[in-house]
Amino acid sequence: MQNLREKWRHIIFGVDSPKGRLFDQILIVCILVSVGSVMLDSVASIHERYGDYLYMLEWFFTLLFTVEYLVRLYISEKPARYARSFFGIVDIISILPTYLSLIVPGANYLLGIRLLRALRIFRVFKLMAYMGEVRLLTSALYNARRKIMIFLYSVGVLMVVYGTFMYLIEGPANGFTSIPQSIYWAIVTITTVGYGDIVPQTPLGQALAAMAMLTGYAIIAIPTGIVTAELTSVGRDYKSRMQKECPQCHKDEHATYAHYCDNCGTELVEESTQPS
Amino acid sequence: MQNLREKWRHIIFGVDSPKGRLFDQILIVCILVSVGSVMLDSVASIHERYGDYLYMLEWFFTLLFTVEYLVRLYISEKPARYARSFFGIVDIISILPTYLSLIVPGANYLLGIRLLRALRIFRVFKLMAYMGEVRLLTSALYNARRKIMIFLYSVGVLMVVYGTFMYLIEGPANGFTSIPQSIYWAIVTITTVGYGDIVPQTPLGQALAAMAMLTGYAIIAIPTGIVTAELTSVGRDYKSRMQKECPQCHKDEHATYAHYCDNCGTELVEESTQPS
Amino acid sequence: MQNLREKWRHIIFGVDSPKGRLFDQILIVCILVSVGSVMLDSVASIHERYGDYLYMLEWFFTLLFTVEYLVRLYISEKPARYARSFFGIVDIISILPTYLSLIVPGANYLLGIRLLRALRIFRVFKLMAYMGEVRLLTSALYNARRKIMIFLYSVGVLMVVYGTFMYLIEGPANGFTSIPQSIYWAIVTITTVGYGDIVPQTPLGQALAAMAMLTGYAIIAIPTGIVTAELTSVGRDYKSRMQKECPQCHKDEHATYAHYCDNCGTELVEESTQPS
Amino acid sequence: MQNLREKWRHIIFGVDSPKGRLFDQILIVCILVSVGSVMLDSVASIHERYGDYLYMLEWFFTLLFTVEYLVRLYISEKPARYARSFFGIVDIISILPTYLSLIVPGANYLLGIRLLRALRIFRVFKLMAYMGEVRLLTSALYNARRKIMIFLYSVGVLMVVYGTFMYLIEGPANGFTSIPQSIYWAIVTITTVGYGDIVPQTPLGQALAAMAMLTGYAIIAIPTGIVTAELTSVGRDYKSRMQKECPQCHKDEHATYAHYCDNCGTELVEESTQPS
Repeated sequence: MQNLREKWRHIIFGVDSPKGRLFDQILIVCILVSVGSVMLDSVASIHERYGDYLYMLEWFFTLLFTVEYLVRLYISEKPARYARSFFGIVDIISILPTYLSLIVPGANYLLGIRLLRALRIFRVFKLMAYMGEVRLLTSALYNARRKIMIFLYSVGVLMVVYGTFMYLIEGPANGFTSIPQSIYWAIVTITTVGYGDIVPQTPLGQALAAMAMLTGYAIIAIPTGIVTAELTSVGRDYKSRMQKECPQCHKDEHATYAHYCDNCGTELVEESTQPS
Repeated sequence: MQNLREKWRHIIFGVDSPKGRLFDQILIVCILVSVGSVMLDSVASIHERYGDYLYMLEWFFTLLFTVEYLVRLYISEKPARYARSFFGIVDIISILPTYLSLIVPGANYLLGIRLLRALRIFRVFKLMAYMGEVRLLTSALYNARRKIMIFLYSVGVLMVVYGTFMYLIEGPANGFTSIPQSIYWAIVTITTVGYGDIVPQTPLGQALAAMAMLTGYAIIAIPTGIVTAELTSVGRDYKSRMQKECPQCHKDEHATYAHYCDNCGTELVEESTQPS
Repeated sequence: MQNLREKWRHIIFGVDSPKGRLFDQILIVCILVSVGSVMLDSVASIHERYGDYLYMLEWFFTLLFTVEYLVRLYISEKPARYARSFFGIVDIISILPTYLSLIVPGANYLLGIRLLRALRIFRVFKLMAYMGEVRLLTSALYNARRKIMIFLYSVGVLMVVYGTFMYLIEGPANGFTSIPQSIYWAIVTITTVGYGDIVPQTPLGQALAAMAMLTGYAIIAIPTGIVTAELTSVGRDYKSRMQKECPQCHKDEHATYAHYCDNCGTELVEESTQPS
Repeated sequence: MQNLREKWRHIIFGVDSPKGRLFDQILIVCILVSVGSVMLDSVASIHERYGDYLYMLEWFFTLLFTVEYLVRLYISEKPARYARSFFGIVDIISILPTYLSLIVPGANYLLGIRLLRALRIFRVFKLMAYMGEVRLLTSALYNARRKIMIFLYSVGVLMVVYGTFMYLIEGPANGFTSIPQSIYWAIVTITTVGYGDIVPQTPLGQALAAMAMLTGYAIIAIPTGIVTAELTSVGRDYKSRMQKECPQCHKDEHATYAHYCDNCGTELVEESTQPS
């Protein structure tokens, strides 16, 4: 019994055996099919014809995932730890909408959240390689968090100011029915989305709109610059750290041009011309 | 009395004591509530039902901020200097619209400017860290000012040229009623906003519009490149300035975590604890 | 006969002789004319008047390219290798649509694929220079493939989530007729295209749409940052590889224009003229 | 007489004297007023009321600029060289549209070209500083020309392919009346302009449109990356070249870490620790 639990633990939680990988692949297909069927069910013509089958499919996958969740809880060494982990929370959230839809109709449309389960896809490929990249991206964004906050605050104030002025210039007669509505217009304009559902009519309004567009067009350079500069710098640190190893203290992160270990002062020998 | 003024000066102007921080936090909440209420008041349905309450709320906050401004003037060591400082000017501008609305109806909608007061939010967090980042961003933009001006001038000329040609090609019959209107269209197009309120109808006009779009799509790379290159370069200078100098060979570019010079192996001494 | 084949092989496959270059130039003109005529034929007014001529032109070029393909097969040293090469496959695909249109009407409109044949244009100019640049771009994108996949997956999940919520908030009454339709809206919005054919009507929907726009506006910085960082890093490697090594101290990072080692003062010898 | 010509040459062509600068400033004001008046004249309501005055203004400025051009020709040392220079050509083009409008009505709207004359504005400020920046930008774009051409060609092929498929899927019934029209739609979509005048109606068309949008959203990263990488690299070369000067051959462009001049092999002395 103990052995069986351990065997299944390897298959369900692990990705290093062919069976474990196969389990994850089947799981991902199930997730995609279940999400796809919920989406198709929202199309009126499909709902009329295949609604009953899709409803059954939805319950089939929900019960399957419920069983899977319980099995995961049972076989994991520390069930509480799994339940509180990222995937543990995602797994339970992914089955709730269907049960919830018995009380609140329409809640089952939230099943799209099941896509988060499919994040396991990155585990099927080489896990660590992707994790390293994710960490690189995350740490670049984390380093840039202050610059990004300052940028977002400034853009937010700009949008409020543009929105207010447009409300005063154009007014409810031209579609700018309220300040929040005008701020919505400002967001649509500055992000260069430009639906065209609310549009300035007066020459003064068009001039201000043109200024807002130019603002949005120009300032996109700022977050791009921030993220790029961080990625370049983080990537460079990451690379330069992979250089020579110190023969004394075995620190292996030295700049390419270093002659002495910057941790203990021992002379570094070139790898290629190493005398031995 | 003198003590009381000093005590309040610490609370109102300072952020290094718990009370000072609490004061700023309450202030920011008041600002957000007052701006939010003015915006909601512009929605017709809300104005009908709660207009009177929101009007009272507006005056309540305006009087509160007026009192606060006078107190700030009274307790500051150099009132004239405060009055002419960035926050001093923002503080007075933030209370004027309500008084102005007694003469010019609608002026109170400009209260959105109060959001600038909320910039104090950056003081509540670690002040210096954010100021450093702001300075980095600002100096990068300042260094790039000439490149940006050349870029803006070129784009401006392009927009005038595209607008003029579209006016000649499409003409008033297809919505291009005048050259300024056509330039407005060129701005909407080149910034990739694309409202769709004015749209070329003739094949020749569509061909020119396609060129304008490709231009706008391609040249966005230029300001982005300018800002990124500056940020990378400014960030690198900023980083290298935080590094240590070797007392032996005077090499001054070591990683922040280095204990020994990587050129000659001499031990590096922390700048702050440097003997002399 | 053997000589004739070899002579033609030089003209048709080679670009290093004036005749070979001329052949490619004529070929590219033929391709552009044939693609242009198919496109014009799809315009109703042109089809009515010149449809017959354009139909003849299409068959003329198709037969010409068929003959060319057969000649290429005949004269190439290893016909099987040519048939399976990139240009070999492009060449056969480029003549199929016309023949296919005898069975499936409209298939001939796919002749646009012939433009891929015109990629030979890069061979007419200095081949290797462009190939080097293409390799640089490709290897930068290849290095960044994991970061890009993570980014695309995250954006995909975001689009599904935004689409689902908008379907629940706005519903079929406001144009969001199904979840796939809502996801289409989310893609139109997050990529900042903004057609305006489906637009949120309720305040809550507009607030969520505003969030989606800001998301799309902000995250464009991420792929840009990724590609730029890779290009900078790949470009730097590429450059440093072109530099000289000092015969004395073996420092291998000198500027391309350096005559003496900047570390020890020894004269640098050009790699190509290096004695041994 | 000779002296008078030389004096005027200094005023009209020079910017290093107060009078020369004043002349350029007045000239720029005249250019802006004349361009502005032509634009306003295209607005129907303004044309009706002030058309006669604006017409007179246009002729006034055209005659003024004609006289200025003749004076420039007369006083310049080498009239032929001036006439063929960038500003010489711009100056003559700027006065032609008005004369042309006597034959071709509407030609005078092309007066917007006069804005190019206002490029002289960069001469009023410190000339050389701006020229340096322009050269930096230009040389970065020049270095990147091959990558940009490859990119543009690929995007062009993509647009043709997307346009053709949309024509086959949606067809004339849904607004995609011809392949050129469909390619216009593809350009509007891939550049993320998104007018919304032509919009896919079928689910399959919307799916393909979604792919086109994602393509456009993703590949904008590539030109941005190219330009940024070039600007960073060009800027770095530019900066590192400003370092130490060789005491022997006075070459003043060495890397910061250089110990010996890489042109003649002489030892370089640190500026700060320079013995004498």
